[in-house]
Amino acid sequence: MAIKRIGTRTVKLENPPSILSTYTIVGPKEGEGPLREYFDEILEDDLWGQESWEKSESKIQEETIKSAIANAGLATKDIDYLLSGDLLNQIITSGYTARQISVPFFGLYGACSTMSQSLSLGSMLIDGGFADKVVCATSSHFSTAERQYRFPLEYGNQRSFSAQWTVTGAGATVLSSSGNGPYITYVTTGKIIDPGIKDVNNMGAAMAPAAMDTLINHFKDTGFSPSDYDLIITGDLGIVGKNIVLELMAKEGYDLKGIYTDCGVEIFNNIEQDTHSGGSGCGCAATVFNGYIYKEMLKGTLNRVLLMATGALHSPVITQQGESIPGIAHAVTIDVNKG
Amino acid sequence: MAIKRIGTRTVKLENPPSILSTYTIVGPKEGEGPLREYFDEILEDDLWGQESWEKSESKIQEETIKSAIANAGLATKDIDYLLSGDLLNQIITSGYTARQISVPFFGLYGACSTMSQSLSLGSMLIDGGFADKVVCATSSHFSTAERQYRFPLEYGNQRSFSAQWTVTGAGATVLSSSGNGPYITYVTTGKIIDPGIKDVNNMGAAMAPAAMDTLINHFKDTGFSPSDYDLIITGDLGIVGKNIVLELMAKEGYDLKGIYTDCGVEIFNNIEQDTHSGGSGCGCAATVFNGYIYKEMLKGTLNRVLLMATGALHSPVITQQGESIPGIAHAVTIDVNKG
Repeated sequence: MAIKRIGTRTVKLENPPSILSTYTIVGPKEGEGPLREYFDEILEDDLWGQESWEKSESKIQEETIKSAIANAGLATKDIDYLLSGDLLNQIITSGYTARQISVPFFGLYGACSTMSQSLSLGSMLIDGGFADKVVCATSSHFSTAERQYRFPLEYGNQRSFSAQWTVTGAGATVLSSSGNGPYITYVTTGKIIDPGIKDVNNMGAAMAPAAMDTLINHFKDTGFSPSDYDLIITGDLGIVGKNIVLELMAKEGYDLKGIYTDCGVEIFNNIEQDTHSGGSGCGCAATVFNGYIYKEMLKGTLNRVLLMATGALHSPVITQQGESIPGIAHAVTIDVNKG
Repeated sequence: MAIKRIGTRTVKLENPPSILSTYTIVGPKEGEGPLREYFDEILEDDLWGQESWEKSESKIQEETIKSAIANAGLATKDIDYLLSGDLLNQIITSGYTARQISVPFFGLYGACSTMSQSLSLGSMLIDGGFADKVVCATSSHFSTAERQYRFPLEYGNQRSFSAQWTVTGAGATVLSSSGNGPYITYVTTGKIIDPGIKDVNNMGAAMAPAAMDTLINHFKDTGFSPSDYDLIITGDLGIVGKNIVLELMAKEGYDLKGIYTDCGVEIFNNIEQDTHSGGSGCGCAATVFNGYIYKEMLKGTLNRVLLMATGALHSPVITQQGESIPGIAHAVTIDVNKG
């Protein structure tokens, strides 16, 4: 069989999987942001009737996946694999969701890069002939993430200007071997890149070099340039990380101005909503992609998008031991046409 | 393209990937156990010159992967993907290892099912034509796992008889699109099954129903029976879980006696080594498979093995909120012949 790899890190899908449907649920703060009209459901209360934030996050991911499957006109028995992950220790949100959904399950951990990691693996499972329908999903919750990674919310801790605001929300994509698009056409897989950042309130800087590394390799592998895309969008670098990418990519000879932005920059009005450097969390790229980007592609406003969710593999245990925070970024090309 | 799925959850690989090499490193206690002659490296000290157990576990996984790649006569630049995960929050062992190895990386979380989860995805990536060489790996460490999941070791907490002993060790497998075997021929993917166990010292019972569910579906999907295998081996159910599987599978009409055992039962002499119900942890299935099983297959003593690593998605945060511990099991068939 011919190897479908082009260059060192990219796969060109022979039979590009089609997106059949998506679904997004977000919390109240995200529902007040500039992308509110693109989300399928906006919660009034981020506990959603549950007794803990963790249980609420599981309910959000579960309802998102069920609704995405229903939107595709399918039942859970039609789904060959569920690929999902989240930010919580032992990916409990995804594990308990998978218990409720009850389909063959591969748990992933890529921190906030999980949306494009799941789309990467899901697309290859379909293109390789191993599956007909796959659900790719992820979620995050401000209150579960803050208390796990930083401080108990009750402290009312003051946030630095480079800090980001973890998105409460989930997004799910149903991929299929057949359909009318948009299609996943290319997959570029990230390496772990560690610029040595130890500040847990500066994730944008920790992830920006990984995003650049994946982006440059995507261009080299495919022969594409920024102008081949209507939109190049990273996951959650925020304002700090976005500016690093713009500046350093320009030094590398890639002009991204007007084509590039970041989901974390777009999801909140960062000044009015007091979200400082922007949104973050697995749910950031998941809701912006499955809400805003997918719906704009259906309208025909965007025809070719490079989604590059970015993950900071931050762990309190090991940063307390003096380690720095490594980053990773996975890129997928989404095309209205089959490429 | 024809779908390669047979039945509801199994994939029959068209061009079964070959195992090119494996490598295992274990701690001192594992090196005193009955399988000691099968491990490639036995540490004298489980800190291995590092300043923390977490850093030691990363060094163990890193050296295991590097040695597996070298054993295959390859360099890291030849590896298309590294698929790995571990038990620690944010899979830090695998993340920091991937930083050192620097190849395209997909992080996984399947708790102790990670060895067969990585072999499942790695095999499909090769059979689908997306990769030529893939490394599948995982690790665990008694001291990092105990303090994260149960009690600080300094408590000297008394262990119950159903408790298991987390294996200190790592195993890595190099898979290739060509080679002389053994080959990965079938992949049966698990669903999350939750029998409602809340006792963190009884993981065998929490995982046994998931193992049974995957095993029964593997037999139904493939038409195989226990006698088609020389060995069926679960990951880390221990004595308690193994006996549950034997008894309940007999009730379902499958006689596994003489063919079935569990990596956690085999790795320690559980009475002399005071390991109670047996070994556990990602490193348990990883070292028993890449050490004992692989080497017996090369000798020709075992020709056809079903490896079914089992994971308990135990998380202190959510069990403290009253949730039970769900289990999952992924099965791969390893064949000396191409199947």
